[in-house]
Amino acid sequence: MALAGYGAKVEGIPAVEAALMAGRVRKLRVENRSAASPRMAVLLDSARGRGVEVEMVRSLGGMAVTSSPQGVLAECRQLRAVTLTQLANETAPSALVVVDHVSDPRNLGAIARSAVAAGTPRLVIPRRRGSPLTPTAFKAAAGALERTRVCLVSSIAQTLHQLSTMSIWTIGLAADAPTSLLGLELLKEPAALVVGTEHQGLSRLVAQRVDQLASIPMVGEAESLNASVAAGLALFELARVRGYLGKT
Amino acid sequence: MALAGYGAKVEGIPAVEAALMAGRVRKLRVENRSAASPRMAVLLDSARGRGVEVEMVRSLGGMAVTSSPQGVLAECRQLRAVTLTQLANETAPSALVVVDHVSDPRNLGAIARSAVAAGTPRLVIPRRRGSPLTPTAFKAAAGALERTRVCLVSSIAQTLHQLSTMSIWTIGLAADAPTSLLGLELLKEPAALVVGTEHQGLSRLVAQRVDQLASIPMVGEAESLNASVAAGLALFELARVRGYLGKT
Repeated sequence: MALAGYGAKVEGIPAVEAALMAGRVRKLRVENRSAASPRMAVLLDSARGRGVEVEMVRSLGGMAVTSSPQGVLAECRQLRAVTLTQLANETAPSALVVVDHVSDPRNLGAIARSAVAAGTPRLVIPRRRGSPLTPTAFKAAAGALERTRVCLVSSIAQTLHQLSTMSIWTIGLAADAPTSLLGLELLKEPAALVVGTEHQGLSRLVAQRVDQLASIPMVGEAESLNASVAAGLALFELARVRGYLGKT
Repeated sequence: MALAGYGAKVEGIPAVEAALMAGRVRKLRVENRSAASPRMAVLLDSARGRGVEVEMVRSLGGMAVTSSPQGVLAECRQLRAVTLTQLANETAPSALVVVDHVSDPRNLGAIARSAVAAGTPRLVIPRRRGSPLTPTAFKAAAGALERTRVCLVSSIAQTLHQLSTMSIWTIGLAADAPTSLLGLELLKEPAALVVGTEHQGLSRLVAQRVDQLASIPMVGEAESLNASVAAGLALFELARVRGYLGKT
């Protein structure tokens, strides 16, 4: 089975800049009134220099998917999803992020940014009907999805089983887990961080199946974090424990 | 001058629950079709027990400010802003968060959640024309704004000056600062974290005026974080350095 493609449509200046630098933009549509800003002018200059077709339009109106495309929309060659084995073998020890649920593509974009910044640009994402990697996710990722490898799966539970057969520990983030993620030794082993992107956190089945549940300790009681903030904290904790961030 | 009020309108179930527990809900409007869910039923039960007026409506349609009010909208007694001196004197050493720019109220809500969870529920927020503490901010805060003290100011630059006269260090988050925020000793002193909420980070004037610029070190080059993720990381670093999170 051919691996799925995604990212054919990208909106927003930082995301389009990154897609252009990745060499996958086929055509740009730019609003006339946005073309004069220096940043957009540079973008247009670069696109034309690369032989990308540019169409100036009066309004992106109905063409844009996001509510504020910042005057630019790119049609792109798709990115290719990769297999779980490919993701797992990219680093030693393995490090990847499994996203359980994708309700808001903006959260997915923010998680991709954190994953790239923290040095773990490897995401497993559930596919439901279509790809969750919408133009809204690309815009929120501000370029980070160009530098992320993505594995699209139909069942997270099955992914957890596969990871187990590959001897990769699965660590689920859960606000009420008694074990703290901070300084967790297991993060030094081949590991997959399993994060939710909704208020509810992980689904029950996924929480039951991970090897270890861990929480970010909070000072206030009964508090909770925005899902992408929690994922960001977990990703930077992995980087810290492994020494990727230098002396801290 | 009387201090400004805010939070008269709250939408979304977790935010309304928190406002109700704070004892400031005057009236609830609930969509008929949402009333049967157990969580909403409990909310209604509690509201009626507290003598809150409840109006069942066919649709919240035009009444809601957020795009998905989750079937409930509360009219509330306003929360009162506090002075900078009050914020500064709440803890010893002082710890507060100054938000430079507020472009997206969702980011503001996520910052409030992180601030409460990390034990620093004290925000200084710039006021422009109206209050940035919109129903959208309250919804994204998922209750955290009920437990946050807020000082609304018209000039962040002036706030930095005032903090300086109170002997509170101002530490600005900037992606390109050579000093790392991780383990920064200054966080143990009376300190205000100054965070941006846009791609651009801090405004130039604010970056020039803070006592110390510090960055979250990244593994990838030329990467950046979602603004509320960066603020969350900074808030938890302050908590870690001060020992609020226990042994890490």
